[in-house]
Amino acid sequence: MSNPLIVDIHTHVYPPAYIDMLRARHKVPYIHDPSDGGPPRLIILSSDDDSNIPLDQRGRPVDSSYSDINVKLDFMDKHGIDCSVISLANPWLDFIGEEQASEWAQKINNDLESTCAQVNSATATSDKLPRLFAFGTLPLGAPQQAAVADEVHRISALPHIRGVIMGTTGRGNGLDDPQLAAVWGALQDTQLMLFLHPHYGLPDEAFGGPEIVRRYGHVLPLALGFPLETTIAITRMYLSGVFDRFPKLRILLAHSGGTLPFLAGRIESCIAHERTFKVNGGSVQGPQRGIWDVLKTNIHLDAVAYGTAGLKAAVEAGGGTTDRLLFGTDHPFFPPLDEEDEKWTSVTTNYKAISAAFGGDEAVAAVLGGNAVRILNLK
Amino acid sequence: MSNPLIVDIHTHVYPPAYIDMLRARHKVPYIHDPSDGGPPRLIILSSDDDSNIPLDQRGRPVDSSYSDINVKLDFMDKHGIDCSVISLANPWLDFIGEEQASEWAQKINNDLESTCAQVNSATATSDKLPRLFAFGTLPLGAPQQAAVADEVHRISALPHIRGVIMGTTGRGNGLDDPQLAAVWGALQDTQLMLFLHPHYGLPDEAFGGPEIVRRYGHVLPLALGFPLETTIAITRMYLSGVFDRFPKLRILLAHSGGTLPFLAGRIESCIAHERTFKVNGGSVQGPQRGIWDVLKTNIHLDAVAYGTAGLKAAVEAGGGTTDRLLFGTDHPFFPPLDEEDEKWTSVTTNYKAISAAFGGDEAVAAVLGGNAVRILNLK
Repeated sequence: MSNPLIVDIHTHVYPPAYIDMLRARHKVPYIHDPSDGGPPRLIILSSDDDSNIPLDQRGRPVDSSYSDINVKLDFMDKHGIDCSVISLANPWLDFIGEEQASEWAQKINNDLESTCAQVNSATATSDKLPRLFAFGTLPLGAPQQAAVADEVHRISALPHIRGVIMGTTGRGNGLDDPQLAAVWGALQDTQLMLFLHPHYGLPDEAFGGPEIVRRYGHVLPLALGFPLETTIAITRMYLSGVFDRFPKLRILLAHSGGTLPFLAGRIESCIAHERTFKVNGGSVQGPQRGIWDVLKTNIHLDAVAYGTAGLKAAVEAGGGTTDRLLFGTDHPFFPPLDEEDEKWTSVTTNYKAISAAFGGDEAVAAVLGGNAVRILNLK
Repeated sequence: MSNPLIVDIHTHVYPPAYIDMLRARHKVPYIHDPSDGGPPRLIILSSDDDSNIPLDQRGRPVDSSYSDINVKLDFMDKHGIDCSVISLANPWLDFIGEEQASEWAQKINNDLESTCAQVNSATATSDKLPRLFAFGTLPLGAPQQAAVADEVHRISALPHIRGVIMGTTGRGNGLDDPQLAAVWGALQDTQLMLFLHPHYGLPDEAFGGPEIVRRYGHVLPLALGFPLETTIAITRMYLSGVFDRFPKLRILLAHSGGTLPFLAGRIESCIAHERTFKVNGGSVQGPQRGIWDVLKTNIHLDAVAYGTAGLKAAVEAGGGTTDRLLFGTDHPFFPPLDEEDEKWTSVTTNYKAISAAFGGDEAVAAVLGGNAVRILNLK
């Protein structure tokens, strides 16, 4: 097939100002510079801040791929990616409360905007897509909900911002929190995409306790905890009626929806058999719209599933078309362990799965880039 | 299409002796007879044993569908089911320790065997499949592992036992516990099917705490907690190398594998990027066989997914054939809320999804019954 446009909608950055802020901190999230002069360590997961692990070895090494936009551009070149929609990596501004939250959101969002503008200006050609767009970040810890909504409205006017990235805790009480109504309203009004992304995983007890979790490195928290966290968050959001009250909300779920596509049928069946809900004679309102309707209307999924089984479920859950599935890499996470590797396995695995899952060139091209261009209005 | 054979491999019973034992108990699991003479209440989930709920209203009403085999046979007739492979419902014998465990396992297994024999003898015709087979239960709380293995060997000689049902805690420490080696060995030697089934769900904290869980009735624990529990259990089993040491183990995962088919690619990718494992230069052995190999060789999935998205992922994860997917109902759970309903929605939803997911009559017939007849040697 002729080379399709490739757009990466799941690719993270820590702008230099954010790195500096983490370096000044001493509790999660923080950056620690080892005493032996080795590369700085990034400690963003509570489970990595383990007093059994020497401080110099906690977390993961953080290199320039996290903050230097030129490293991102090299990565894009190496993997044939024409355009990236960059987003702040977890845990975003979740840990910043009070007035500082809005200041930091503005600083990060302005930084993202100017990075996109500078790179696009330096690399512009008449026949190609601009290299960079961005999802902004929100001051969810701000004292007033209105401050969060204000930042949504402000960034919707920035030329390169196409949405916002958000974790699963919202303003601290999950995404079914009524205190998010103004935020949902602002996102619906501006039609900015809400990119929902995990960070906190599940409590160690869900896996059998901390000793079990440690036994298998990061596999249980990352392979299972992350997608299960996303699934729980979007299900609570759905059950509380957010999509009834904000029927035009646009949402993009990380990692092909966590496990939502696979479990949507079971969720629907459990609701139909649950006496708590008004529709079954109970007292709780419950969701009015069906889960499949929401999946086909409001929800978009990235194609970061590392296999055809997940991708096929993702497409089937969206009504059987590939129109709402969007390629992503999760860069700079999951680099090759062998630094000699030319291309990243975490990326090529997803390329191969997309090609294998969808027969036609047209569907593959849509997932790789066409959908992103259309849905996020990239031009 | 001509009427295919229909076999239900996911259908539960509480034999009368088990019901009597629960009635004599006062902590979870137990049965409580309300003071107003209403139907007895079955309290099997810790979350249902909530002191904020009046004792007479805790849990769910338990009617004769749980223990009267004639009610099961009526249900089978109503839904066109030719043959059922019955299994003890959760929480099985997980709460029974010491010597009593083996006594109870023998009692339950002998009861299951004689129920099958009596029903089949009373309903036998030369041209039809026998009506009942069973998965036995194991005395996992027995002091010695050998006692569990002994029961596996004993029931493998019973004419109607085709496997065992097991929860996710094993002997109390999960399914990656080395103290299960003799049990895995006995299951492999006898080639009895291990039907892995959830019961405990996830800690309330995984959902945001008990208040959040209660808000949506049983939806979060049943729709998400159950399948996530299964996924965690089978992943720990896989990561610990059980399928390397017991490569002929045969396992049937409830609810189409929890979410394993959807997440298998992510699990594979996280292992490939995890420095803890020897294959990546670490010190922990890690699994030797690939997750897709295990899915195609050892694992069978029920077709209890309530939608085409889950079913398609289940088939894709097994290598793209419908050969390892088996129809089930989860009876007597999820009865219609409106007792006037002729057929159970929880059953017809799965019938419809199977027909919609797999084009050909042959594939549908295999999933509805042909696979079960072949895989479980039902004759």
